[in-house]
Amino acid sequence: MYAIAIHGGAGAVPRATLAPERERSYRAGLESALDGGFAVLERGGTSLDAVATAVRLLEDHPAFNAGHGAALTRDGAAELDAAIMDGRQMRAGAVASVRHVKNPIELARRVMEKSRHVLLVGAGAEEFALEEQFVLVPNQYFRTAERLEQLESEQRGERVSDLVPPSVQGTVGAVACDASGNLAAATSTGGMTNKRPGRVGDSPIIGAGTYAKNGVCAVSATGHGEYFIRAVAAHHVCAAVEYRKLTLEQAVHELLHVILRKLGGDGGLIAIDHAGRIVMEFSTEGMFRGARESTGRREIAIY
Amino acid sequence: MYAIAIHGGAGAVPRATLAPERERSYRAGLESALDGGFAVLERGGTSLDAVATAVRLLEDHPAFNAGHGAALTRDGAAELDAAIMDGRQMRAGAVASVRHVKNPIELARRVMEKSRHVLLVGAGAEEFALEEQFVLVPNQYFRTAERLEQLESEQRGERVSDLVPPSVQGTVGAVACDASGNLAAATSTGGMTNKRPGRVGDSPIIGAGTYAKNGVCAVSATGHGEYFIRAVAAHHVCAAVEYRKLTLEQAVHELLHVILRKLGGDGGLIAIDHAGRIVMEFSTEGMFRGARESTGRREIAIY
Repeated sequence: MYAIAIHGGAGAVPRATLAPERERSYRAGLESALDGGFAVLERGGTSLDAVATAVRLLEDHPAFNAGHGAALTRDGAAELDAAIMDGRQMRAGAVASVRHVKNPIELARRVMEKSRHVLLVGAGAEEFALEEQFVLVPNQYFRTAERLEQLESEQRGERVSDLVPPSVQGTVGAVACDASGNLAAATSTGGMTNKRPGRVGDSPIIGAGTYAKNGVCAVSATGHGEYFIRAVAAHHVCAAVEYRKLTLEQAVHELLHVILRKLGGDGGLIAIDHAGRIVMEFSTEGMFRGARESTGRREIAIY
Repeated sequence: MYAIAIHGGAGAVPRATLAPERERSYRAGLESALDGGFAVLERGGTSLDAVATAVRLLEDHPAFNAGHGAALTRDGAAELDAAIMDGRQMRAGAVASVRHVKNPIELARRVMEKSRHVLLVGAGAEEFALEEQFVLVPNQYFRTAERLEQLESEQRGERVSDLVPPSVQGTVGAVACDASGNLAAATSTGGMTNKRPGRVGDSPIIGAGTYAKNGVCAVSATGHGEYFIRAVAAHHVCAAVEYRKLTLEQAVHELLHVILRKLGGDGGLIAIDHAGRIVMEFSTEGMFRGARESTGRREIAIY
């Protein structure tokens, strides 16, 4: 038994406003990432390789808010965050606020594997990237016409104060269980449209947007990051399964519909347990998502 | 009933190597911060104000690894991280990798109170500081002769690879419960001596080095940050108390001596529950710490 689940962000996705060709593009991107990650598992690869592959493919696809096509800061730049966690020894790597790394998830993995640190941010993270022979790209690479439009529309909007959150959210992520029962999670994002430079959401925060522990579960979250940080969302789910013996469904439901609702935040998350059971749930109108299992199940969904 | 506890870092502090005048300096710094924070509670102030005051005093004291006297990166600069959390609505603010903010804990609090974000890093955090009328200081302000010596000795040392952690650790923090039963936690640090620029430890990570939830507990950690991040240390303690009904002592003991020991990390933490009960524990040789309660207890300790 092996399985993988992915997400491409959660938020207000009214059916009426998602044009058919846009929906096809999202679905094609999800399918490609899902199948790419699954192929790793199929040929006996680890869950760590599978989630890294799936997230890299989502980063490269312009429709999703990560890597190429990332949401832009209020200054019109892309600032990227990513994290990966290996459930085997609970090792983790993360980067935040990087501007020139084509695939932040690969840098996060390198931080895990080649440094004695877990989280590197900003120019220091890019210095590490260069030492590790990553080729940097201009910030321009990440910017798409659509994200610039979103930024302009957000900036024209009636934002009463800096305290009001934007409506557009997004993040990509993957969780997987390989044939040996190893769990892994990976998350990558451009963050919120019109965010303040230097703002870091839950994606690269181990325990908030990303967590994995063998024998328990792996989690990747998406949504209004500040609330997921305050709730320590991914770890909340893991701890509820491990220590309170909640089912994965119960733990995810409690997190999204009790804990986060009380705080006032919404979003979604995907999780997988050591038996390869997948949960994909959200408190928003939609969540781009997909799941594929060695049993033959293959599913892509938005609403 | 109201109470406050503080720490000034945990690590290898052999009695033999701590000269009497150094020990006096540490104790005087701890006393000043403890009494400063306690005075806030005494005059009816909130736990949030108390922990911010105590941490600010520790930041200003050159003996502790936060603010003035922070540990230096491998480039000889100070890069500072801090977080604060208010247990009332579980609001939180944090900054990481800032180089010119005299009191990072005050900036973390401003992020919580005046932005719609939880975590700001690097130049973006300093841009926010300027917008909020913080006066920036040169990086030189943080550097002391002693920290430069430590860095040089670390760099001369037989570090076999970048994967070996340094022996010197430190961080400052405070937890408090005010007369209304409100809990708060605050943590501030310069991180590891000889760290890579951009490296962020557990201190500013909500759930790892800092957490507070009214009715449950408030936690501030110190130690080898990477392990505290992977264990989601502070949230682990809070969740164990809230959901598994462990006592605060049991939860802290499990975290330090079971969970972190298994991962290979050491350090210490201070915690306080809604009844004002304080736990201060560590798995290292010593932890600079202090506790003061409205019952009259006043304690400063190192070993």
